[in-house]
Amino acid sequence: MSSAEAPLPMFRPRPEDKAELHRLFDEINRPGATARGGLHRLSASAEDGAARQVLCDWLAARGVDVRVDPVGNVFGVIEWRKGAPVVLCGSHLDSQPTGGRYDGAYGVVCAALAQQAVAQAVAGAGITPAFNLAMVNWTNEEGARFVPSLLGSSVFIGALDAEDALAVRDEAGISLGEALSRIGFKGTRGLDLDVAGYAEVHVEQGRGLESSGTRIGVVRGTWAALKLRVRLKGDQAHTGPTPMKDRRDALLAAAHVIAEVRAIADGEPAGVMHSSVGRLHVYPNSANVVPSDVTAYVEFRSRQPEVLDRAERRFAASLNRFAAMTGTSFEIEDRSLRAPAGLDPALGDLAHEVAAGVGLASADVDTVSGHDAISLSQVTPTVLLFVPSAGGIAHNEGEYTSPEDLEAGLEVMAGVIGRMCLAGAVLEDEGAAA
Amino acid sequence: MSSAEAPLPMFRPRPEDKAELHRLFDEINRPGATARGGLHRLSASAEDGAARQVLCDWLAARGVDVRVDPVGNVFGVIEWRKGAPVVLCGSHLDSQPTGGRYDGAYGVVCAALAQQAVAQAVAGAGITPAFNLAMVNWTNEEGARFVPSLLGSSVFIGALDAEDALAVRDEAGISLGEALSRIGFKGTRGLDLDVAGYAEVHVEQGRGLESSGTRIGVVRGTWAALKLRVRLKGDQAHTGPTPMKDRRDALLAAAHVIAEVRAIADGEPAGVMHSSVGRLHVYPNSANVVPSDVTAYVEFRSRQPEVLDRAERRFAASLNRFAAMTGTSFEIEDRSLRAPAGLDPALGDLAHEVAAGVGLASADVDTVSGHDAISLSQVTPTVLLFVPSAGGIAHNEGEYTSPEDLEAGLEVMAGVIGRMCLAGAVLEDEGAAA
Repeated sequence: MSSAEAPLPMFRPRPEDKAELHRLFDEINRPGATARGGLHRLSASAEDGAARQVLCDWLAARGVDVRVDPVGNVFGVIEWRKGAPVVLCGSHLDSQPTGGRYDGAYGVVCAALAQQAVAQAVAGAGITPAFNLAMVNWTNEEGARFVPSLLGSSVFIGALDAEDALAVRDEAGISLGEALSRIGFKGTRGLDLDVAGYAEVHVEQGRGLESSGTRIGVVRGTWAALKLRVRLKGDQAHTGPTPMKDRRDALLAAAHVIAEVRAIADGEPAGVMHSSVGRLHVYPNSANVVPSDVTAYVEFRSRQPEVLDRAERRFAASLNRFAAMTGTSFEIEDRSLRAPAGLDPALGDLAHEVAAGVGLASADVDTVSGHDAISLSQVTPTVLLFVPSAGGIAHNEGEYTSPEDLEAGLEVMAGVIGRMCLAGAVLEDEGAAA
Repeated sequence: MSSAEAPLPMFRPRPEDKAELHRLFDEINRPGATARGGLHRLSASAEDGAARQVLCDWLAARGVDVRVDPVGNVFGVIEWRKGAPVVLCGSHLDSQPTGGRYDGAYGVVCAALAQQAVAQAVAGAGITPAFNLAMVNWTNEEGARFVPSLLGSSVFIGALDAEDALAVRDEAGISLGEALSRIGFKGTRGLDLDVAGYAEVHVEQGRGLESSGTRIGVVRGTWAALKLRVRLKGDQAHTGPTPMKDRRDALLAAAHVIAEVRAIADGEPAGVMHSSVGRLHVYPNSANVVPSDVTAYVEFRSRQPEVLDRAERRFAASLNRFAAMTGTSFEIEDRSLRAPAGLDPALGDLAHEVAAGVGLASADVDTVSGHDAISLSQVTPTVLLFVPSAGGIAHNEGEYTSPEDLEAGLEVMAGVIGRMCLAGAVLEDEGAAA
């Protein structure tokens, strides 16, 4: 480093920021906390509303401008330069049913504290960054209560229409719009932000960092994901007298589908493909009735799109075979292919540089799961950081990340978004003397 | 037949009774009627309450004494001889989800009209039967909303505790007791008379009568049924990053179970065993989470108990294999074995005799499915009649029985319960001097 360079603020969180990270994390995770140490906080539930309120109160108390958009995304904006684009940083407060307390919530709390650390450094240095800085809590990242996942961030980037998103209904028939109104988070402001870049920190949900003793993962790319909603149709019949040969059992067809989805992944070398059926609707779901209508949510994931192509062809042939075997019919009601995406190379390099600067080991990694950062990467330079997950446990009450790793994520996040706001240059405050 | 026999009343329904059978059947099936001609009337639902009210009003208008017991069984009692035992005749008004309109409802309406026909004949003949006559609508025969099936009749015969039955909850967490209170059918007054015998008419739910051109089936015995509630336990994990080998997928285990239950029946000659998994609960049932907890409702049915023994042994071995394959564990949470039962031979003979007397072809049949008559047969001489089901279609909106067949059932039912009340002898009215 040459001494001729401008003295960049370090944006390092202070000890009190780290202490507040843990305190706020605990407070925000009280709503929805489970007896077994996990989190059950479905999107736009009462628990989600309570956690959102903790966040909003916390931001407002620090003078951060809180804005809620029509799909419930919550932004906390610090504006140094009126009308300038914003660097955005955040994650999500919703969880899976009986899920973990780090997934999403950590990224939101870390964004809030990193924003504060940057604001302190900016004030201390007497500079005006090129870009403003906002933190965000995205609505319904998980896709557990409302389908699709990444809903709030998809609306934000324009990939999903807000009205369509608000009309999505949960299993009880409640629309997202109604649910947001009930918790007081159906807002009107926020979608007008001009975004200069996006940063997110998340728990890894895998064992890579833990195995290699690395504190910070810099996500360079994502796996492709093929998601299919398959509807299997048979015919209701009495499970007693109806001869076996006359049955058109949609649940039997689904059973073959579930086993085949697994077999397709098992047919690839380990680690090449992941597959699942996580959700199943059975109708009429009565013990004495042959099921007539079953919907299966099928996922295939791989780094290599050609592997997914091959899987999809085999799966289509299998569906035809199962339909013939069981006297049922099928329909692919929904198909979405998320292409593998690369994240911003320069921001990834910046993350490594910041980590090295504070003495933290970092490594390039990929993400198999979707994150709001993947949505944002479609429209703005994006960086996604991982901190270790103990045992790789995810979407499970046993999810855990150590306090030291949580603090490491805050260190790097503050450094990254601080520098993103500066945009590589220190701009003197044009409006004020001294 | 010798001319020395006493002149027994014939108990034949009049033309107006047959017309009223169809009219009342249509009226009682308006609550819960579906657009596709079926019936969706879950036990103790608002629709069930409305249908029950139609029945009660109809009975009360004819001077029949209506009594509702604590689990909602509705009795309509005609008492000729104070305190004498009753002949009981009935079925159920509840249906499966999007089920058929004949299953149960026909038996209730037929019982009500047969009771009227008998009462008219008794009045006309100026006799006092040995036994009184009651019709009944049993609560929750189907077991669709509340498990177990045959609930009301099981409480009545003392096989199930009333308090336990009232505490059973549906999927929404509503107890049967609460549901009955809401519709005003949690009564206090049951049938305090001894039961002298039970008669029920039901649609066949199979093709036997239709194929052979027979109007009346006289059920002589039942198949055995082995019902198992199998709980499969895995571990929640993220469907994205979790390596396939680390997954403990309870839904994958369930898929193997469902396919195996079918394979076990397919391993027997046609018609020897029926099997099914009609109901499945999946937790957390979120597309991005490996399911951790799945409950499957398994049934095996056969006329031969040894076939069920063999099936159960094979199934147990398979469960162990699937658990090892998928890294899951399992528990048989509930097991019930309904032994094959014979119905009362003398009443069966009487039914054939009555059918022959009115010129209707009748044949002995078995029942694969459970009916309230099977409960009652454990405590009192019982006769179960079948009328044809078009195409054998059951638990389906397409269920159909012709008006002529419905009337045939009424003819035989009136004759059978009339003679049961007489108990083989005409007793002169002791209290009145004709």
